[in-house]
Amino acid sequence: MARTVEITDLLLREAQQSLLETSMALEDVVPVCEDLDNAGYWSVECWGGMAFNSCIRFLNEDPWERLRTYRKLLPKSRLQMLLRGQNLVDHRNFDDSIVRRFVEKAAQNGIDVFRIFDALNDVRNLKASVEAVKRAGKHAQGAICYGPSPVHTIPAFVDIAQQIKGMGCDSICVQDVDGLLKPQAAYDLVKGIKQKCGSDTLVSVHTHSTTGVTMVSLMKAIEAGCDMVDTAISSLALGRGHNPTESVVAMLEGTGYGSCLDIERLHRIKQRIASVRPRYGEFINQPIGVETEIFQHQIPAALILNMEYLLKSQGTPHLLDQVLAEIQNVRRDAGYPALAIPASEILGTQAMLNVLQGKYKVITSEFADLMLGYYGTTLGEKDPEVVDKAATHANKPAITCRPADLLDPSWERRRTEALALGCNGRDEDVLTYAMFPKTAAQFFQTRTAGPKDIGKELSKTKAGPEPAPVESASSNTRPGESRTYIISVNGEEHKVTVTSAQ
Amino acid sequence: MARTVEITDLLLREAQQSLLETSMALEDVVPVCEDLDNAGYWSVECWGGMAFNSCIRFLNEDPWERLRTYRKLLPKSRLQMLLRGQNLVDHRNFDDSIVRRFVEKAAQNGIDVFRIFDALNDVRNLKASVEAVKRAGKHAQGAICYGPSPVHTIPAFVDIAQQIKGMGCDSICVQDVDGLLKPQAAYDLVKGIKQKCGSDTLVSVHTHSTTGVTMVSLMKAIEAGCDMVDTAISSLALGRGHNPTESVVAMLEGTGYGSCLDIERLHRIKQRIASVRPRYGEFINQPIGVETEIFQHQIPAALILNMEYLLKSQGTPHLLDQVLAEIQNVRRDAGYPALAIPASEILGTQAMLNVLQGKYKVITSEFADLMLGYYGTTLGEKDPEVVDKAATHANKPAITCRPADLLDPSWERRRTEALALGCNGRDEDVLTYAMFPKTAAQFFQTRTAGPKDIGKELSKTKAGPEPAPVESASSNTRPGESRTYIISVNGEEHKVTVTSAQ
Repeated sequence: MARTVEITDLLLREAQQSLLETSMALEDVVPVCEDLDNAGYWSVECWGGMAFNSCIRFLNEDPWERLRTYRKLLPKSRLQMLLRGQNLVDHRNFDDSIVRRFVEKAAQNGIDVFRIFDALNDVRNLKASVEAVKRAGKHAQGAICYGPSPVHTIPAFVDIAQQIKGMGCDSICVQDVDGLLKPQAAYDLVKGIKQKCGSDTLVSVHTHSTTGVTMVSLMKAIEAGCDMVDTAISSLALGRGHNPTESVVAMLEGTGYGSCLDIERLHRIKQRIASVRPRYGEFINQPIGVETEIFQHQIPAALILNMEYLLKSQGTPHLLDQVLAEIQNVRRDAGYPALAIPASEILGTQAMLNVLQGKYKVITSEFADLMLGYYGTTLGEKDPEVVDKAATHANKPAITCRPADLLDPSWERRRTEALALGCNGRDEDVLTYAMFPKTAAQFFQTRTAGPKDIGKELSKTKAGPEPAPVESASSNTRPGESRTYIISVNGEEHKVTVTSAQ
Repeated sequence: MARTVEITDLLLREAQQSLLETSMALEDVVPVCEDLDNAGYWSVECWGGMAFNSCIRFLNEDPWERLRTYRKLLPKSRLQMLLRGQNLVDHRNFDDSIVRRFVEKAAQNGIDVFRIFDALNDVRNLKASVEAVKRAGKHAQGAICYGPSPVHTIPAFVDIAQQIKGMGCDSICVQDVDGLLKPQAAYDLVKGIKQKCGSDTLVSVHTHSTTGVTMVSLMKAIEAGCDMVDTAISSLALGRGHNPTESVVAMLEGTGYGSCLDIERLHRIKQRIASVRPRYGEFINQPIGVETEIFQHQIPAALILNMEYLLKSQGTPHLLDQVLAEIQNVRRDAGYPALAIPASEILGTQAMLNVLQGKYKVITSEFADLMLGYYGTTLGEKDPEVVDKAATHANKPAITCRPADLLDPSWERRRTEALALGCNGRDEDVLTYAMFPKTAAQFFQTRTAGPKDIGKELSKTKAGPEPAPVESASSNTRPGESRTYIISVNGEEHKVTVTSAQ
């Protein structure tokens, strides 16, 4: 009997974020939910990360309402979200009162599995949310943000995993957002975690297919004992997205490992998503093939494009190579944070200023905060001279405590502000405001117009292909109530009955 | 010290065939030849397969002239071609006089490595060409056409490998044209070959990325002892093409295996090809993502599309599923030939006739030939009733000898015919005529107009992006003579000096 490898599908959230730069309209994914719910996934990732912001910013849609709809449409599934530790679904620290409330409400509205990471791998930034998840009786998965550096060796990452395990997390995720995890590193890291944290510690590997090498990394991680891997259905996979679910199923055949997935359901999901994906053509801005250059410098392509754009607008496009080289220097000076958001953007901007204005002549307040510990600690030592300069520029001291310890509880204040701006009075709405005050205030005003279907709008204006007709989902299904959808996929009609969870 | 894995790059031939459905203009690849020649490849595949036909049919270009040009532009490299055994570069059997002459001339014009396969894996169809290659003092690589079936087990494939080895081949290739080779099968097959043929037997693995799983298969093949793998530069890779060279290099890092490739040269090749690829946009008709459905039925997507088209034109599109199911029956009746050209097309057409006209009411002459042994033997037993029907339909007996044994030497006859139609009198020209008589006769008339640049023509009419200017290659460089090209790649000028081989 083959050892079962569990699969988390990313179709409903991160695959859309990685490949379409936005969230798909709910009506485009409703028809696949019944198959997603019954295909045999360990969990279905559907919320958090950039999707929260995307909902109110682009879709005029309440992210909490979308979560409740998924809860109804996927009654059998563990729903999973990505939580940025103390940053929740933004890139700045919130105080513990907000963190606790956010996790509590996410759990109440349907999230079963919280994947929690900190871009600096400062585990103190995971503490409040992990505790809140445990209090809610849900699954806390602590994630290591993977990005090798002179100080980020395999033993160093294993040490972080042990700290995460020590916090009481139910599982550990190796999270590789740029496809940097090579096969041997994947093997060594998972092996190390299993050895140091105990072989019964559940380990998940999340990676992107950006560099074309991470299917192999998944295989090697599985050989090292990895229990769960993340994939996306093949019609919304590859490129800067994820490895295709169906390929991972095929990869395991005959190996002594196997998945429990129902391949017929996967094919139906694939076909449906393939039929609606062209509607989002405007949002597809991906290169052909793979990007292995990132192994040399670890700078995400999006950041390079941004630097290129900024330098052009300054009339200095020829300085790009210098800026990219300077990012490496600035990263070293800052103690080798992984080049993940927000650190990647902070380092990129500071590197550009260093090249244009002179080394640390100008220091951004974000870079000062990074140098002074206001985002958390870094694994590498910071350059003390640059720390001093940052302290002078920002006129505040370096700190060594957990950054959120300095923040006063803000729940009541934010609640009062939100109510004044059109919040509906529910805690969920206050949290939406707390995350993105300006965007939320705008959303409160336009909410009654209902969600936009940006794919449909595009396909109207651009005469893109129309997908098969789908009855739109009602999100007002009452607990226990059934609804039947007649869904036409590639000309074949499917009857889908959705019974909502209690 | 890591064990070196050798790499064959497919950019100049099969990558173009798989992804662009044609051959790129010579001037689009001239600028990368210096890097290809010095990057450290074991061999550079550049000739044979469909490219020969493509040259005279679409490019108005002499395929032998292109080969000589590659010989000059890649003086340090082993040049490799794909030879379809007794079919040479077509899909029908030639007599031994033609096979011998073709191989001799290919060797004289520059080919060092001949990869030779037979679609039915009837090794008797490799015999004449392998002998001719050995006589020319070149490298004969015998290839197994991979496609699992109830009779095509790992031991059966290993047995074929032993037969190939026994013929005196210098290396053995596992050739998987549809991405059907799963990781465990790759491991078991390579391991089996090494065990039965000797651990010093050079084994190469050729696969396609169609199903998204074969990067892992390459890794497992290497772990089993595979010496060489085929890849394509990343900007002309993936989809129904091949695994990206740069990703394979990265895959091996730290594993105990390594490649000798120069990553800086690979990046330059990638960038240049990425800049000209959009010129061939019209020829890109590839699906997004991967096609794992082929694991269920093994029917190549191109054949399905063709069946769909034919059924539509008959007004019977609803019969597609029936025809696809019937292909499996017909394949079984025919002794399980791999679904590779020409068998795939022969079986597809017969399956369609069976569905439309009744089971074996009409039998095509090609299917009769296949049933009666005129393409060679199959590994599985043929249905004797269907063999009888085929004999009756075709009014000829089943044979068990090597098919080419029935063919009379035709060199002199073809030479006389070719001369009457405008052939230049050289043996190479006669061979061009022998391969494709009608197309060659047409080509002889239009040859003086010189090669067409179909990418350029398209980009003119479609206003596609123009590539960086490149001085066009002279193919008249005399042996030992040097030419210098100034090549502009992404705005950077490179000076490339090409000294032709003796």
